[in-house]
Amino acid sequence: MALEIEKKFLVKGKPWLNAPSQDLRQGYISKEAKATVRVRIAQNQAWLTIKGKTPDNSFSRLECEYNIPLDDAETMLTQLACSDIISKTRYTIQHAGFEWTIDVFEGVNDGLILAEIELPSEDTLFERPDWAYQEVTFDHRFSNSSLSNFPWKQFSDEFKS
Amino acid sequence: MALEIEKKFLVKGKPWLNAPSQDLRQGYISKEAKATVRVRIAQNQAWLTIKGKTPDNSFSRLECEYNIPLDDAETMLTQLACSDIISKTRYTIQHAGFEWTIDVFEGVNDGLILAEIELPSEDTLFERPDWAYQEVTFDHRFSNSSLSNFPWKQFSDEFKS
Repeated sequence: MALEIEKKFLVKGKPWLNAPSQDLRQGYISKEAKATVRVRIAQNQAWLTIKGKTPDNSFSRLECEYNIPLDDAETMLTQLACSDIISKTRYTIQHAGFEWTIDVFEGVNDGLILAEIELPSEDTLFERPDWAYQEVTFDHRFSNSSLSNFPWKQFSDEFKS
Repeated sequence: MALEIEKKFLVKGKPWLNAPSQDLRQGYISKEAKATVRVRIAQNQAWLTIKGKTPDNSFSRLECEYNIPLDDAETMLTQLACSDIISKTRYTIQHAGFEWTIDVFEGVNDGLILAEIELPSEDTLFERPDWAYQEVTFDHRFSNSSLSNFPWKQFSDEFKS
């Protein structure tokens, strides 16, 4: 089981133009006290991902991910998900030696654009691009599990770029 | 994703003597409204199992099971389980053309012995052995997810053989 160490930012502009992308659909079959269980489909592949909770004042958490059959994932999203399905397009771009993902949300989270960078440790230094205009790492509303039942449109007024 | 169609019985006597067995440890990282997520370890193997809820008046439910690395499972049981860990020895015996499993529980469920038979359909006929003295298929307290936080010793007085 690996550690996921991740920072999150709101995005301005369209830094992802011409970047490689994939369409993602994901849902949650658990958001219990100690873990979330996520089902994700991208094109013709699917994964089941278990993530521990992020401790207070940290941005690291346990993560295990397993490739699963696409049919299983479709059934889980249709019949076992405990909240709305999240749809988004994920772009991958390079900036100053690091890979960033930019998620452009659709559906109930339309208008939300989140950039994420995964780091090898919490004290790794990285250059923050201008388009990553506001950090939201510690705001739990921006976790995808939260966005699946408390979507962006319900609190976007607080974040005008 | 398969269907699990299963009947459950309390056991009297020791019909499992000399039967092959394995020691199981399992915990739950989710027991949400629509699904349970179980981690099970048997000897040096581990599995993650997603089960849908059983509809009322049915004994069938969706089930997906995936082999996972032992280290991941140990970490999940230690850090992500949302209730007590269940320990039991599972015996496998044949009776009248069907395979039965007999779970002899330990720890907080010490004293409980449950036999299970998996069937290809709800209307499959099978011979119930004498030692399967009381059916508990529809009593949700005998699900392992329930037994992990409401153990046998809290309601065993109702079931004297």
